[in-house]
Amino acid sequence: MKKISLRPLASLALAAPLASCAVEDERPNIVLFLIDDLGWLDTSVAFGEEVYPYNLRHDTPNIASLAEQGATMTSAYVCPVSTPTRTSIMSGMNAAHTRITNYTSVDKDWNPDATDTPSAQDNDVLLRTDWNINGVTPSSEPLDRAVHITPYPQILKDNGYYTIHVGKGHWAPNGTPAANPLNMGFCVNVAGQVAGKPRSYYGEENYGNTADKWNYFAVQNMAEYYGTSTHLTEALTLEAIKTLDYPIDNGMPFYLNFCHHAVHTPIHRDPRFFQKYVDRGMDEGQARFASMCEGMDKSLGDLVAYLRERDVLDNTIIVFMSDNGGNSENLSKGGTRHTQNLPLREGKASCYEAGIRVPMVVYWKGKVAAGTRLNTPVVAEDIYPTILEMACIDDYQTVQQLDGKSIVRLLTAGSAAVSKAMADGTITNQQQANDFQIAEDISGIDPQREVLAHFPHQWKPYQLHDIDYMSSLRKGDWKIVYRHRQQTLELYNIGEDITERNDLSATHPEKLAQMAEALTAKLEGYDALLPTFRATGKRIPMPNELLK
Amino acid sequence: MKKISLRPLASLALAAPLASCAVEDERPNIVLFLIDDLGWLDTSVAFGEEVYPYNLRHDTPNIASLAEQGATMTSAYVCPVSTPTRTSIMSGMNAAHTRITNYTSVDKDWNPDATDTPSAQDNDVLLRTDWNINGVTPSSEPLDRAVHITPYPQILKDNGYYTIHVGKGHWAPNGTPAANPLNMGFCVNVAGQVAGKPRSYYGEENYGNTADKWNYFAVQNMAEYYGTSTHLTEALTLEAIKTLDYPIDNGMPFYLNFCHHAVHTPIHRDPRFFQKYVDRGMDEGQARFASMCEGMDKSLGDLVAYLRERDVLDNTIIVFMSDNGGNSENLSKGGTRHTQNLPLREGKASCYEAGIRVPMVVYWKGKVAAGTRLNTPVVAEDIYPTILEMACIDDYQTVQQLDGKSIVRLLTAGSAAVSKAMADGTITNQQQANDFQIAEDISGIDPQREVLAHFPHQWKPYQLHDIDYMSSLRKGDWKIVYRHRQQTLELYNIGEDITERNDLSATHPEKLAQMAEALTAKLEGYDALLPTFRATGKRIPMPNELLK
Repeated sequence: MKKISLRPLASLALAAPLASCAVEDERPNIVLFLIDDLGWLDTSVAFGEEVYPYNLRHDTPNIASLAEQGATMTSAYVCPVSTPTRTSIMSGMNAAHTRITNYTSVDKDWNPDATDTPSAQDNDVLLRTDWNINGVTPSSEPLDRAVHITPYPQILKDNGYYTIHVGKGHWAPNGTPAANPLNMGFCVNVAGQVAGKPRSYYGEENYGNTADKWNYFAVQNMAEYYGTSTHLTEALTLEAIKTLDYPIDNGMPFYLNFCHHAVHTPIHRDPRFFQKYVDRGMDEGQARFASMCEGMDKSLGDLVAYLRERDVLDNTIIVFMSDNGGNSENLSKGGTRHTQNLPLREGKASCYEAGIRVPMVVYWKGKVAAGTRLNTPVVAEDIYPTILEMACIDDYQTVQQLDGKSIVRLLTAGSAAVSKAMADGTITNQQQANDFQIAEDISGIDPQREVLAHFPHQWKPYQLHDIDYMSSLRKGDWKIVYRHRQQTLELYNIGEDITERNDLSATHPEKLAQMAEALTAKLEGYDALLPTFRATGKRIPMPNELLK
Repeated sequence: MKKISLRPLASLALAAPLASCAVEDERPNIVLFLIDDLGWLDTSVAFGEEVYPYNLRHDTPNIASLAEQGATMTSAYVCPVSTPTRTSIMSGMNAAHTRITNYTSVDKDWNPDATDTPSAQDNDVLLRTDWNINGVTPSSEPLDRAVHITPYPQILKDNGYYTIHVGKGHWAPNGTPAANPLNMGFCVNVAGQVAGKPRSYYGEENYGNTADKWNYFAVQNMAEYYGTSTHLTEALTLEAIKTLDYPIDNGMPFYLNFCHHAVHTPIHRDPRFFQKYVDRGMDEGQARFASMCEGMDKSLGDLVAYLRERDVLDNTIIVFMSDNGGNSENLSKGGTRHTQNLPLREGKASCYEAGIRVPMVVYWKGKVAAGTRLNTPVVAEDIYPTILEMACIDDYQTVQQLDGKSIVRLLTAGSAAVSKAMADGTITNQQQANDFQIAEDISGIDPQREVLAHFPHQWKPYQLHDIDYMSSLRKGDWKIVYRHRQQTLELYNIGEDITERNDLSATHPEKLAQMAEALTAKLEGYDALLPTFRATGKRIPMPNELLK
């Protein structure tokens, strides 16, 4: 195991209090830097107990630098696909609770679920659930199959924050209120649209805005770069930076919701970095993908450099994360499919770790101890209350019931505790850092909290073994996986077996039963939807029912 | 002649000083409400000496109300087509000086000029000028055939104004910096794009964003309304209003550059008003166009209502105007072509009055005397220094040399003088009001100032008699028209002959010579481009050369 350098920050108070900004001028700026389809292994930051070979593929020095100055969240979980994560972030609700469990289409009232394989036997075939295919809506106007929410950017804006959305939205289809970032509480919208991916990353192709290329996935607001060699990742970065002058010049706190399309398909090379990876021996697809990852890292670096130049970096919190795991089911990425995220199992759209465990780093100068690793699980719906607490807003009302918890104490007091353990020799290497549990009375969050993933869908028009109708629950080192199609349960100890290859369900029946009850309780608590059998019209059993 | 009610505002100080806002909190909000292709006769406000029959076609109660509360500018002049006016506004320069004299294409480096009629004799054929087909650029980066400017929204923004662009830009082609409103000094861009018209006004057609409809003219940022019956004019209004919350809530002065696509082609009915005009006996095209005019008026009304509701109307200046004259060369407007703007001659793209004289109203509570008519000529390039003076910004630098003059004293002291004349019985009817000249020592502007129009282009692929290569100069009641193709001069007294039907060039040779010298001096002063003969490659003569 390679050792990493661990830098305790001795000057940080051990028991940092809640973020305090009684003085309005001290309200921090906040950036959510959300990447699309970036896997846990796709950066040079090692989120695992060791530096895995896959961490060495892509150069991401700026993310690494952010991690050195902030906290590396080693157990950040989101949903298997994009929209559920993004709507969980916007709502503070778990995806099982919003019932937005798959990605929304560009078309209103359209269910993008693949239909179940027609050749299967009737009693094997599952019917699609009645999930909220119209996503979230911030309006009080009725909207079928949508969940009504108060998005936190609206609360930020109402409290004086200058709120900026850049890039992918994907909260709802065209023809609905949430198609428009201005309805989601944003003052400014740059290129925000409903599409789950861009038509093209190439300026030469006008990002899809040409007569032969155009469809709903063509990127808006980018006419300045048409016909140039500016990769979309760079164009979005240049545009995001332009939006910051006004709040910085006028002393208004800002919230930047910077949602890159990268590194989602189409896998289009970033010309600034492509050749370097070819020269390293990667195949075309791998080099393209690698160049997109480094382009995204460069974007972070350019943003940080600008914030430093404008002398606001020290008062700006940066939350870096991905919306789901790395895609392992796309030929254009090169390499061999279903191996892209090793040692994690599978990838995007799966409830195995590679689908839901994502890179996450938080930079918050003076509050988060630099170079710390925080092992407590963090989930997508935590972002909502966390960002509002960071913004010193504690008096707000929402139409929805929040499921997430603020991680501000984890970031502050929790990182201070880790820093102390590093200073006193309790933590001396990466494995110890990853295993170090922060007590709930310090962080405010149970380190054994349950993490639910719920994906009652067939993703592709064809069946895949490990990417399919599925639910999972992690609690501490244990994880249960429920395969809906087979109605089978699997049990893993991901503390010892992060690859999820050793199914312990047969050897640990008591733990299995316990985890099945926990998963059932969670699904029932959220009133989650499960698929139904075509043959009978009945929903599939709850996990605990399988053991009766 | 129909009498109009004239309401003197006795309480306004007679010699209103320059706008003063030493206290930063008093800086007014400013709205430029710019309509596309709205003719001088297209509203129910009579800008002429009488209420012409054409003023009775369209119901525009909100513009009328604005005029009652503000100043009616009876001699507002712009350029014959869109881009030159819009770039004059953004630069403060005359179009002959920017050398942007025709509309810019959506494609960089593309000259949209119609080529001269091939069937003509060689010595009749004019070659296109080397005008700035790439429009303006706010960047210091080199750009061929573009004029480098500091746009005034940038100065407003740099001085704390929250600057918002909504709708049509049309300052430059795709692939150039000015394609992006964020480069023109705007904090917020809603639907801003380079196209000179929308692909569709219909939400049912996604404003052109469908696979079969799409081209560069499809309107961006409107996904919320796809598939609904929301006319584009209403959608833009709803979006514009959404952008105002942040500055109003936070006490920031705002500048709203509200640039409707209406009432430009395509002539697509506004469903809120269409049937009413059919019921009045209009043909399909006329009723469509009328409904678009009333829709645009409704937009103004909705905006004003919102400003009142938010209690900021009294501190908001509204400048209402059109970018060129009414289109008289389009079958889809119904009626009979070339009669659309009577009694004015011709329409859009012509240097006759109907092409360049436009509706203009200014509302400025407490500064502009209500219900006044100001006869002093105002030109597009005046907008730049005027808006900066309204915003109390007097210390600014620009890369370009401004040609326009601030009309703030005309609006304030000038309207006070008119109000006094109304109170003391000097002005008792509309004709007297229109004829009332405000001395330069009061308004700061010579009431006899010269007004240049310069359109060295063939607009359509076919030749039109009165819409063609042309220049004109108005000075007081006199106007000279130079027809480039024929190299002939015409002279009109528009004080007596607003229809420009009585050419006085033969009977008033001295006045003709005087006006030819003035027009020549103006063109030479701006180093204006004139077309060249295909046969010889030489430019056509200057107007004064024709008389030698």
